Amino acid sequence: MSTDPIISHNERAPLGASLPWTQVLDSLKLSAEGLIPAIAQQHDSGEVLMMAWMNREALEETLRTGRVCYWSRSRGTLWRKGESSGQVQQLKEARLDCDGDTLLLLVDQSGPACHTGRKSCFYNAIRGDRVEVVSETLVHPVKLYGR
Amino acid sequence: MSTDPIISHNERAPLGASLPWTQVLDSLKLSAEGLIPAIAQQHDSGEVLMMAWMNREALEETLRTGRVCYWSRSRGTLWRKGESSGQVQQLKEARLDCDGDTLLLLVDQSGPACHTGRKSCFYNAIRGDRVEVVSETLVHPVKLYGR
Repeated sequence: MSTDPIISHNERAPLGASLPWTQVLDSLKLSAEGLIPAIAQQHDSGEVLMMAWMNREALEETLRTGRVCYWSRSRGTLWRKGESSGQVQQLKEARLDCDGDTLLLLVDQSGPACHTGRKSCFYNAIRGDRVEVVSETLVHPVKLYGR
Repeated sequence: MSTDPIISHNERAPLGASLPWTQVLDSLKLSAEGLIPAIAQQHDSGEVLMMAWMNREALEETLRTGRVCYWSRSRGTLWRKGESSGQVQQLKEARLDCDGDTLLLLVDQSGPACHTGRKSCFYNAIRGDRVEVVSETLVHPVKLYGR
């Protein structure tokens, strides 16, 4: 619950109060690797689609282009969502949490967000002593990735 | 997009297929600090409330008691949500993403989730060159924490 010195100025501010984005950006609490977690939520249905990571460059590109770009930790490169699958995310709004260390992206997801071809990556429900698949594949992964 | 050897068995499985939770738990991809990010979403409205971290103990307690318990990185202790504010989170369902490194918690949040007294921690919207407060305080923090 520790607070960032800049974003914390919004803590007790009324609806509509605002801070300069460039100042907030410069004081974002990134991880040791320079990353911030970003949750993608379908803007109209409210479905939580996925969680991935951004570095400053990915965040700035996303805000500039309106198309969501993450940082791929496994590949060590910018990851323009949909660049291989075609399933892009258009940004509707980006939000920061109270202590400025997590992003919530309201997006319009074209087709499935998940590499398995499901709308959301969160399809494994822990129910009693089992982990059960609770959503269906929309598009077969072969159609998305050719494999 | 790398996949955990156990949870990956659900990737191409049909709706209703399941895996043993204990095996999945033993192979969760925790961070170097033994933590996994957990997104809390209000189960009925779909509002994303907050993102925090769990260690294995917090996750097991949450599943056992039905009341959400995180790991506080700043305090280095288990953090039973609502223990000081009274604003508890009852767990409706816990879900894992495709590669087993993020949790989505469907919860019933009593009152505000945010320490600022707002329902959600994600009240800062990046709009143009400003970061604007887009939700109102439900309860004054003084009523929650006495300060």
